[in-house]
Amino acid sequence: MRLALIGAGRIGKVHAQAIDAHPDARLVAVADYHIAAAEALAQQFGARVIDAEAAFEDAEVDAILIASSTPTHADYLERAARSGKAVLCEKPIALDLARTGEALQVLEAHPVTCALGFNRRHDPQFASLKRAVVEGRIGELETLTIISRDPAPPPAEYVAASGGLFRDMMIHDFDMARWLLDEPITHVQATGSCLIDPAIGEAGDVDTAMVTLTTASGRLCHINNSRRACYGYDQRIEAFGSAGMLEAQNETATRLRFTGEGGQVEEKPHWFFLERYAAAYAREIDDFVTAWKEQRSPLTDATDGLEALRLAEAAVRSLEEGRRIALADIH
Amino acid sequence: MRLALIGAGRIGKVHAQAIDAHPDARLVAVADYHIAAAEALAQQFGARVIDAEAAFEDAEVDAILIASSTPTHADYLERAARSGKAVLCEKPIALDLARTGEALQVLEAHPVTCALGFNRRHDPQFASLKRAVVEGRIGELETLTIISRDPAPPPAEYVAASGGLFRDMMIHDFDMARWLLDEPITHVQATGSCLIDPAIGEAGDVDTAMVTLTTASGRLCHINNSRRACYGYDQRIEAFGSAGMLEAQNETATRLRFTGEGGQVEEKPHWFFLERYAAAYAREIDDFVTAWKEQRSPLTDATDGLEALRLAEAAVRSLEEGRRIALADIH
Amino acid sequence: MRLALIGAGRIGKVHAQAIDAHPDARLVAVADYHIAAAEALAQQFGARVIDAEAAFEDAEVDAILIASSTPTHADYLERAARSGKAVLCEKPIALDLARTGEALQVLEAHPVTCALGFNRRHDPQFASLKRAVVEGRIGELETLTIISRDPAPPPAEYVAASGGLFRDMMIHDFDMARWLLDEPITHVQATGSCLIDPAIGEAGDVDTAMVTLTTASGRLCHINNSRRACYGYDQRIEAFGSAGMLEAQNETATRLRFTGEGGQVEEKPHWFFLERYAAAYAREIDDFVTAWKEQRSPLTDATDGLEALRLAEAAVRSLEEGRRIALADIH
Amino acid sequence: MRLALIGAGRIGKVHAQAIDAHPDARLVAVADYHIAAAEALAQQFGARVIDAEAAFEDAEVDAILIASSTPTHADYLERAARSGKAVLCEKPIALDLARTGEALQVLEAHPVTCALGFNRRHDPQFASLKRAVVEGRIGELETLTIISRDPAPPPAEYVAASGGLFRDMMIHDFDMARWLLDEPITHVQATGSCLIDPAIGEAGDVDTAMVTLTTASGRLCHINNSRRACYGYDQRIEAFGSAGMLEAQNETATRLRFTGEGGQVEEKPHWFFLERYAAAYAREIDDFVTAWKEQRSPLTDATDGLEALRLAEAAVRSLEEGRRIALADIH
Repeated sequence: MRLALIGAGRIGKVHAQAIDAHPDARLVAVADYHIAAAEALAQQFGARVIDAEAAFEDAEVDAILIASSTPTHADYLERAARSGKAVLCEKPIALDLARTGEALQVLEAHPVTCALGFNRRHDPQFASLKRAVVEGRIGELETLTIISRDPAPPPAEYVAASGGLFRDMMIHDFDMARWLLDEPITHVQATGSCLIDPAIGEAGDVDTAMVTLTTASGRLCHINNSRRACYGYDQRIEAFGSAGMLEAQNETATRLRFTGEGGQVEEKPHWFFLERYAAAYAREIDDFVTAWKEQRSPLTDATDGLEALRLAEAAVRSLEEGRRIALADIH
Repeated sequence: MRLALIGAGRIGKVHAQAIDAHPDARLVAVADYHIAAAEALAQQFGARVIDAEAAFEDAEVDAILIASSTPTHADYLERAARSGKAVLCEKPIALDLARTGEALQVLEAHPVTCALGFNRRHDPQFASLKRAVVEGRIGELETLTIISRDPAPPPAEYVAASGGLFRDMMIHDFDMARWLLDEPITHVQATGSCLIDPAIGEAGDVDTAMVTLTTASGRLCHINNSRRACYGYDQRIEAFGSAGMLEAQNETATRLRFTGEGGQVEEKPHWFFLERYAAAYAREIDDFVTAWKEQRSPLTDATDGLEALRLAEAAVRSLEEGRRIALADIH
Repeated sequence: MRLALIGAGRIGKVHAQAIDAHPDARLVAVADYHIAAAEALAQQFGARVIDAEAAFEDAEVDAILIASSTPTHADYLERAARSGKAVLCEKPIALDLARTGEALQVLEAHPVTCALGFNRRHDPQFASLKRAVVEGRIGELETLTIISRDPAPPPAEYVAASGGLFRDMMIHDFDMARWLLDEPITHVQATGSCLIDPAIGEAGDVDTAMVTLTTASGRLCHINNSRRACYGYDQRIEAFGSAGMLEAQNETATRLRFTGEGGQVEEKPHWFFLERYAAAYAREIDDFVTAWKEQRSPLTDATDGLEALRLAEAAVRSLEEGRRIALADIH
Repeated sequence: MRLALIGAGRIGKVHAQAIDAHPDARLVAVADYHIAAAEALAQQFGARVIDAEAAFEDAEVDAILIASSTPTHADYLERAARSGKAVLCEKPIALDLARTGEALQVLEAHPVTCALGFNRRHDPQFASLKRAVVEGRIGELETLTIISRDPAPPPAEYVAASGGLFRDMMIHDFDMARWLLDEPITHVQATGSCLIDPAIGEAGDVDTAMVTLTTASGRLCHINNSRRACYGYDQRIEAFGSAGMLEAQNETATRLRFTGEGGQVEEKPHWFFLERYAAAYAREIDDFVTAWKEQRSPLTDATDGLEALRLAEAAVRSLEEGRRIALADIH
C-alpha cells in the first residue's frame, strides 16, 4: 500500500514511522500546510512532498492518512472516499454530529476502506483483554471500569478548540467501552469538576470527570478521566464478570525493582501515548493495510467515530442537566 | 471495660473473640433470644448468660455491644444511652432516617461513649491510606474509587429485609467515602442493575451498582458494588490526587506464587469479611475501649451512621428518578 | 498443657504470648536467673515465678519451654526428659555435635514429647510451599533457593559466643533445606566473606555467605545469608521443579501502594522475626500441644537439631578447606 | 555501516532484522554454506548473496557479522581483523582457551572495532540495573544472584558439540557476573547434576548447575542454571548491597491479570531469547555501529569472550575436582 500522509505533526510522525516499518506499506508522499515539516518528514522516509489537494488525485497513491488538524478531517475524509482512496483518519471526524453524519453519508455513497484512529483497540494488552472476554474467560461481563489519565493538562486554548474533555479525551474511552461492552449503550450519566487548571474551567470545560454508561442488558461501565497524573499516562481497564475479572494494568519500560529503606519501588508507568501505544500504532497500520488487501472492514471505522461522539454529546448534556440521558435522544 | 454482648450470631462471635483478646476488655455477659447460642458463647469466654433487658441495669456492665438483628438496634442504643452505658452498635442504627434521627436525639440528651460498627475504618491498610492522604502524600485529593464486592449474594429474602443494596451493603462504602473525602458531599448519582440473581430484582433491589458522589469543592468519588465476585471479597480503594495515587489492594492469606505453564499465579483475595477484616475488628474494640477510658469520641459514632444512611437514601432516590440528587434535599 | 517457661528474655516473651493465646495451653510458671524479668513476665500472664531447677520436679507442670541462653539448653533438655516432661527447646541444643549427641541419647532413653524451635517450618507461607511441593505442584523438585538476611548484624561479641554464622543463623536455613529437599543431603560447599562489620571478621566469622547443598539424587540447594539488609528481614524461598516453580515472597504489613513521580512504591518487608514469624510462633505452640496430646512427634524434634548442626559443621569445614565436604564425614 | 552477515540461521536472522531496522546500518551481503538460506535472507532485506571468503575482501563491506557455526568463529574473526573490517562475532570465539587466545593476538596485531555477542548486556532492564549499581543506588555491592533457565533442553548431540553447560549456556551468566561485579573474580566453585535428560548425563554434561564466584574484595555471586523451565525463559538478576537490592524480574508480553476461582494469574515469562531479548539485539547493533563510528570500544569485546571462557573452564574443573578453583590457575 502506497500512502500519502496529510499532516506532519506529532501524530503524523508516529504514523510515518509505523508505515515505514511495515513490510507491505510505503510512505510515498507527505503534505502539510507547514512546508518545512512536510519536507523534513518526506526526506526522513524517502517520500516526496505533495500538496494535500493533489494527493487525492495522485494515481501513485493508494491510501490517505489524515493526521491534519481536526477541522480538516471531514473534508479530507470525503475527498478520499470520492477519489476511491483507502483512508485512515485520525479521530475525530468532526466535533459535531451533523458534520460527522454528512461524512458518513459520503462514505456510504463511495465505499472505500476506511479506518478511524482509535488506536487503543490495537494495543496488545487491551486486545488480549477483549479476546479473553469474547472467549468467556470471565463468564458474563457485568461491569467495566476504564481509567484514563493524561500526564499533564493541555493549554486552556487547546481545550477550547478541542471540543472539551468528553469529545476530545474521553472519546477514546467511549470507543473502548463500546468495543468491550459489545451491546447497545442506552444511558449516560456524567459528573465533572475543574480541579487542576482554573483556566480550563473558565473555558467552560472540566478536567476531571466520571461517567457511567448502562447497556441494554444492564451492564454498567465507569469511565474515570483526569487531565493530569503526575506519575504519567494512567491507562487501565477492568472487566468484571460472573466467572472472574480481567485487569489491564499500566505498563512500564522495564520490570526492575529496587528495595531499600523507603520500600519496594518499581518504575512509574510510561509517560504518554507515544511510549504506551507504540505497538498499537504499528498494529493499526497493519490492520489498515490488511483490511484494504482483504477487502474487509478495519477494526474501527467511521461509524465508530460517530457513535463515540454520540456518547460524548450525551455526557455533555448529562453534565449540564444533572440527569441520566437516554442515548436514543442524541441525534 | 466489662462488656455485655447482645446477639450471639456470626458477628457477635467475632466481637466476643476480639473482646477476649483485648487486655483491657472483658466479656462478662451474653444475651440472645436464642438461649443456646448465648450459652455456648458465654461458656467459651467465661461469661454469664443474661437477659438483654437486664444487661442495661447491670452494675457490673460498663458497656453494651449491640450485635442483634437490625430492627432492635435503635431501641437498644437508646436504652444503653439512658442507662449511661457505653455502647458499640453494629450498623445500621435503623433502616430509615426518622428512626435513626430519634436515636441520635436520645444520645444527645444522654451522652455516652457511642461507637458505630463501621469496621473498615479500623482496617490497617485503609487506616494507612487515610493517614497518607491526611499527611499530603498525594497532594490534593481529587478522585476516590471504592470497589466493594461480596463473594456471593445473600438469599433474596434477606435482601428484602435488609433495606436493599444501598442501605445494607454500600453503606460501608458511603462511610469510607465520607471519611476519606473529608468534606461535605453535595450530590449523589446512582445507577444499578440486577445481573446476578433475578429474585433480587423481583424483590425490588439491584445487585450491581455504581454511584458517583460529588463534594463541595468538586472532588469526585466512584463506588462500585457487586453482590457476587467468584474470587472472593473484593475490597479496594484508590485515592488519586495532584501528587500521586494510593491504592489499597486486596490482601491474601500468603504471598506464595506459583509459576507454571498456565502463568504466574498468586492466591485469590481473602474469601470474606471474617478473614479480610480480622485485624479491623480487634482494632475497633481497642478504639472503643480507649475512647471510653479517655472520654473521647470513637473513630465512628452515631452521626456517621445517620450521614451514611442519608447517602444511601439519596442513592435510592437517584436510581428511581434517573437524576443527580442534592444531599441537601435528603432529610 | 501447663507450661513452665525457662528464660524471660525476648524469645521467652514471644513464647509466653503464644502460650497465653492458645486455648489448650497455660503458662503456669516462669524462671529466669534475672528474677525481675521472671516476675514481670509471670505477672503479665498470671503465672508464678519458679526456680528453674524446681520446674522439672513440679507436678503442676506438664511441659518445659527452654528459652534460656544456649549453653544451658542441653542440660535442661536432658532434665526435662529425665523428669518425663514434654519439652520445647529453642535451637540450638548445643554448639557442638558431641554435646548434642549426648542429649539425644538421654532423650532416647527417656522418651518425651520433644520439639525443637525451628519456628520457620510453622510459617503459613512456607508450610503452604511445603504442602504444594509434596502434592506435586512443581513435579520433581530439582533446585531450592533460600535467601535469609537479617536487618542488622549482631554485636561482634554476640557473634563470637554464638558459634558463628553457620551454626547460629544459617542453621535455620539448613533445617528448611532438609525439610523441603526431603532426602539425604550428601555434600556441602560453602563460601563466605566479611563485608559488613570488620569486627565480625576479626572474631573469626563471616557476615555474608553462600552455601550449596547436594542431595542423594542430585537436587541442588543454594542458601544465601547476609547479616544486614537495610530494608528489613529478607526471607524468601524458591522451589524449582520439572512442572513449575514456587516462590515464597517477603511479606509486608499492608498491601498499600503509592504511585508518584518516583515510581510505584510498596512497603518494605517486615523488619524482623517478631513481625515476620508471629503466626509461626503461635502455630509452633499449637503443634507442640497437639503432638503432646496425640502422643505423636512434633513437626521438628531433637534429631532435626542434630542434623542441621551437622550441615553447619560441614559448611564451616568447607569454608576452611575450600572444598566440597561429604556429609558422611561429619560426626 | 555496510554489513556482511555470515550465517543465515536463527540468530543470523535476528541480526539481519536488527541491522535493517537501524537507520545507520545496512545489510549488503549474506553468506551461508547453505545457499538457499543465504538467498532467502538476502532477498528479504535487499542484500546480495556472497561467498564467505569474498566478504572479507569486498570493498563495499565495512563490517562482518559472524553468526555461523561455533568452529568457524575464530578463523572468521581473525580474517576480519586482518582485512581491517569491523566485526561483531557471536559468542563463543572458540571452545578452548588456546584457540581463543590466538584470535586475541591477531586482534591485537590488527586492531579493528570488535564486538562480542553477549547480547544480554544490551538488555534495557539489565542495563538499567547496571546503571543503578554504578550510580550507587544499592551502596556497596555485596552479593549477586543470576538465575538463567532455558525453556527446554537442547538435543543431547547439540550438548556434546557445544562444550557443555558451562561453556555454552552459563557463559552468558559469567559475562553478566564479570560486568556487574566490576572487579576481578578470584575463585570459582561449581556443583551440577543431570536431572532433566539422562542423555545429557551420558554425554558427560550436567543440565542443572549452581556456581559460586568470589571476587578480590570478597563479593559473592551465585549463578543458577537449568536447561528446562516449563514456564519459559527464566532470566533474573538480583544485586544486593549495603543500601538496598535491585531485582531484574522476568518480563511478560502484556500486564494483563486474570482473577478467578483459581487465584490471580498473570502471564508466564517470555518463552525464549527471541522475545526476551528483542530489544537487546537492536541495541547491540546500535552499540556496534556507534562504536565503529566513534572509534571507541563496544560494550563487549573479544577479551570479554576470553575471560568468560576462563570462568567456564574453572567451573568445569571445580565440578570435576570438588573444590574451589583459583582463577589464577586457569590459563
